[in-house]
Amino acid sequence: MSVRTPDPDPDWTPNPDEPPKPNPNPGWLSDVELAEIRRRLPLLYVEAVPVRVDGLGQVVQVGVLLRARATGEMTRTVVSGRVMYGETLRDALFRHLEKDLGPMAFPQLPASPVPFSVAEYFPLPGLTVFTDDRQHAVSLAYVVPVTGTCEPRQDALEVTWMTPEEAASEAVSAEMEGGRGALLRAALASVGQLR
Amino acid sequence: MSVRTPDPDPDWTPNPDEPPKPNPNPGWLSDVELAEIRRRLPLLYVEAVPVRVDGLGQVVQVGVLLRARATGEMTRTVVSGRVMYGETLRDALFRHLEKDLGPMAFPQLPASPVPFSVAEYFPLPGLTVFTDDRQHAVSLAYVVPVTGTCEPRQDALEVTWMTPEEAASEAVSAEMEGGRGALLRAALASVGQLR
Amino acid sequence: MSVRTPDPDPDWTPNPDEPPKPNPNPGWLSDVELAEIRRRLPLLYVEAVPVRVDGLGQVVQVGVLLRARATGEMTRTVVSGRVMYGETLRDALFRHLEKDLGPMAFPQLPASPVPFSVAEYFPLPGLTVFTDDRQHAVSLAYVVPVTGTCEPRQDALEVTWMTPEEAASEAVSAEMEGGRGALLRAALASVGQLR
Amino acid sequence: MSVRTPDPDPDWTPNPDEPPKPNPNPGWLSDVELAEIRRRLPLLYVEAVPVRVDGLGQVVQVGVLLRARATGEMTRTVVSGRVMYGETLRDALFRHLEKDLGPMAFPQLPASPVPFSVAEYFPLPGLTVFTDDRQHAVSLAYVVPVTGTCEPRQDALEVTWMTPEEAASEAVSAEMEGGRGALLRAALASVGQLR
Repeated sequence: MSVRTPDPDPDWTPNPDEPPKPNPNPGWLSDVELAEIRRRLPLLYVEAVPVRVDGLGQVVQVGVLLRARATGEMTRTVVSGRVMYGETLRDALFRHLEKDLGPMAFPQLPASPVPFSVAEYFPLPGLTVFTDDRQHAVSLAYVVPVTGTCEPRQDALEVTWMTPEEAASEAVSAEMEGGRGALLRAALASVGQLR
Repeated sequence: MSVRTPDPDPDWTPNPDEPPKPNPNPGWLSDVELAEIRRRLPLLYVEAVPVRVDGLGQVVQVGVLLRARATGEMTRTVVSGRVMYGETLRDALFRHLEKDLGPMAFPQLPASPVPFSVAEYFPLPGLTVFTDDRQHAVSLAYVVPVTGTCEPRQDALEVTWMTPEEAASEAVSAEMEGGRGALLRAALASVGQLR
Repeated sequence: MSVRTPDPDPDWTPNPDEPPKPNPNPGWLSDVELAEIRRRLPLLYVEAVPVRVDGLGQVVQVGVLLRARATGEMTRTVVSGRVMYGETLRDALFRHLEKDLGPMAFPQLPASPVPFSVAEYFPLPGLTVFTDDRQHAVSLAYVVPVTGTCEPRQDALEVTWMTPEEAASEAVSAEMEGGRGALLRAALASVGQLR
Repeated sequence: MSVRTPDPDPDWTPNPDEPPKPNPNPGWLSDVELAEIRRRLPLLYVEAVPVRVDGLGQVVQVGVLLRARATGEMTRTVVSGRVMYGETLRDALFRHLEKDLGPMAFPQLPASPVPFSVAEYFPLPGLTVFTDDRQHAVSLAYVVPVTGTCEPRQDALEVTWMTPEEAASEAVSAEMEGGRGALLRAALASVGQLR
């Protein structure tokens, strides 16, 4: 059960190894305020499935994040994070890609803002295939080719590059946080790589 | 300028002709709380462009709402409203369609939850083509065929049915709230009806 | 191997129980001409995955065609057929839906002409997951809700209605012609119903 | 009228400045055969709208081809060409991008094979907004970011880079071959850049 109660948003789980940053925008929320709001309003997220493509744009590898949870458990997830007040979706997507993949990943953000899927996360299972015991979150999910080197930061331990077949496997799905195995498969289907 | 400061969300502007309803969900927000949150967090909306289709599914008419604002001004808009805590996107879409088009519209909600467009509304113009001086809102927009009779409720005065050409015209765009003329054109483009 | 050499196009395999029809359009092709062209040019197809939806548009059942092949083998497929000269995609889609599901299926064709997937079928396996030993075909695939009664005609024996889970299963995929199990899963992913 | 009868497929109009190439594939068609087939079968095309994007993937410029026709007339078009027998859509897209933009354009082909629009060209106007007096063609259209230098070859004289506003203007639309002004606007709508 606890496998489905991740915290993929480092805005909310500050890295103890880094000094606390001053709030860059007074409109943004403190942790206490955010905790309160999480029980009152759906929160808007962006998520990204990093991929490597060949010279014709075809997806050949899929990046999956390995994350250590506070309990010591390891889980897998995708790039994921909240959209802040005043921030465009593109800015949020770029910020979270850099946060999770490092500054040298060189992601190619999509020209279209239309996601390949909209994932609805609810605290209780059953409404959708996605769960998040902290909150009701709605996530716009994108496939993002990266051309550089990925060096995960914060609480992501590593990026594992898989073939589309591996990424769609039952074994990987079972390790994905909050039902995101379904999101990974939908990502593969959207690029014509789901068998 | 005030043309761009509409209030298309009747959850926020209660209809004085109707008795106040008890809050159906204690997790939902009072008006004061909502006003506070609107300056701190992007709010999630769904929007729908109602259409009439022929026997082959081709869009032949587009429904545009005419709305009287508190100032007496008339503006045009689409079906639009907030997603509540614990509510699925489909439930929110259906609720706002019924609210704006009446109970006999018989909308055919899309099988796919992927919107034709994601509209980002900011209080200040310039970041995108869409503005909303109340808030930062991100809206998932859908084209929704309706097969019944539309009887607008609340503050929408009427639904005007237009040809795709009329709906895409400069004249109609100039009357649309918050830059939604661009949304209407994107809706038409998504169904192959923009010239 | 023969499992992957279906003939889902009744234009090409006339039903012996029906009298031959006069060619309705002199621009259209005889069987001999078509056989010749099939080795020279990619042919354009439309395909449809029929579904049943609930009141909120959510897919609850998926229709899969069961077909008897000339060899007596049974295989599964989706609605599929060629686009004729001078015919719009909508006309072709409607014609093949009626041909495979009968005149009382009442399909709701999508407002958007953009397919959920483009399937590329080649005579030799390996280029894509889809094969068709008769030809190189490129198929635009749609999810189409049907509201009436399906009575398959011609060589389709029956429509089997499945839950999304069944339709995505390995067992069903193994029975689908030409690799269309992948198409079925992509259809489910596009409507948020792939786990 | 003749403005709408272009020949955007250099496979069909060989460049007199280049020596004739041997047919690389015996399954491909001679000009006489192709002329015959064009009156019997819809032909499959791919089209691409080349764009330049900023660091966040947002489209900032749109490339439009200027072409001199045999009559001396100048018209505008997009990258466009036929899909050959045995060729994948990606291969066809890449081949036509290189043919029309030169070998140094470095196009970033989309990870997804789903087009932003499907354009149906008929010899006679009225069925759709697109016409092509040579044939019935169905085109899968993509937005393709290019990162290098475009040096048009063959009969394209130059690539004109425009802002999204210019590209969507009436003036540019009026110069586009075969009704492709509508395609350009749909391309802009798909990337959130149509006002």
